[in-house]
Amino acid sequence: MNFLEILNKRYASKAMNGQKVPQEKIDNILESIRLTPTSSGLQPFEVLVITNDELKAEIQKIAWNQPQVTGCSHLLVFAAWDTYTEDRINEMFDLTNEVRGVKSEGLEAYRQHLLSFYPKQDAEINFQHTSKQTYIALMSAMTQAMEEGLASTPMEGFQADELDKILNLREKGLRSTLMLPVGYSDTEKDYVAKLKKVRKSMDKMVTVIE
Amino acid sequence: MNFLEILNKRYASKAMNGQKVPQEKIDNILESIRLTPTSSGLQPFEVLVITNDELKAEIQKIAWNQPQVTGCSHLLVFAAWDTYTEDRINEMFDLTNEVRGVKSEGLEAYRQHLLSFYPKQDAEINFQHTSKQTYIALMSAMTQAMEEGLASTPMEGFQADELDKILNLREKGLRSTLMLPVGYSDTEKDYVAKLKKVRKSMDKMVTVIE
Repeated sequence: MNFLEILNKRYASKAMNGQKVPQEKIDNILESIRLTPTSSGLQPFEVLVITNDELKAEIQKIAWNQPQVTGCSHLLVFAAWDTYTEDRINEMFDLTNEVRGVKSEGLEAYRQHLLSFYPKQDAEINFQHTSKQTYIALMSAMTQAMEEGLASTPMEGFQADELDKILNLREKGLRSTLMLPVGYSDTEKDYVAKLKKVRKSMDKMVTVIE
Repeated sequence: MNFLEILNKRYASKAMNGQKVPQEKIDNILESIRLTPTSSGLQPFEVLVITNDELKAEIQKIAWNQPQVTGCSHLLVFAAWDTYTEDRINEMFDLTNEVRGVKSEGLEAYRQHLLSFYPKQDAEINFQHTSKQTYIALMSAMTQAMEEGLASTPMEGFQADELDKILNLREKGLRSTLMLPVGYSDTEKDYVAKLKKVRKSMDKMVTVIE
């Protein structure tokens, strides 16, 4: 399937059948997230992969009882950095130098540029920025899930503060932004699969300036 | 190329050679953006496609003089809704009913749910939410550009308020969030193409809870 075919076929699954997804497929989805480009290459988020049934049931309660939370095989939770710190920025630049085996002047100047404002900025502003990066990764994860023949459901509909408590995210300097249950469609109950995809027309979306 | 191969090969181009991209390739990129999933299916953004050289040069000045802004063939600008309004929400739900030829009770209840809080919410909060949706579409556009054999550069580095003025976005209820120059790599000057990709290791990104 090429990418446009994937986009045409993909839909937000409303019901999954609980069947377990092989680890290799999950690993490929995680790899797609890991390879996703992010602002300044900082990759300012982590991913929690939950298969524990009791934990899924607890999370479902703070996610409008959506059935995919327990019907999925693996529940992915995206958790963005709560802010940018000097350590976090330095870690990524140090890694870059290590991987490439050189220290470039341009990159070091860029490191100093980021260090000069991110750590001083209000944490809430920084978190808005780190959150956005998880949305890029969400698209990667949904795409790779399709390549693996899996259903997935992008979810903003949960009480993030409660989820942070359940997963002890704040203590780790993280805040939940998105969930993505991944699994196999319950083809009888997954009614969205049969509905026509709705998108606005190109002329309502695009303005060309020649 | 499968999606993981695309992710491995993709990089943020630092220099493009000005060569014109055939319209069909641009249309495919726009189609990938149009098909991108968004929160509640509202598609809360528009895309400006700029090929005008003078306009590109003007935008470059408020984008740290990055050479890709003028070196690209097509400059894509993502502009998110400045807020959610009743009209905007109703338009998407009406379209859904039209496309599917039915009025579903569940969907109408969901429409009322969105109408009950989005339009009343602070515009800045709503804009934070609409902005995030453009980051999902950014990943689609970068992916499709790769499928078309094109270089692209995701950009947050521009003065959004100035760009809004240049493109009269505020009058249209829009605010710029991202730019994506698309074109052909200037292989001599595009030094990033030769550098090793840097990503944190899986164990620094993922926590498994079984």
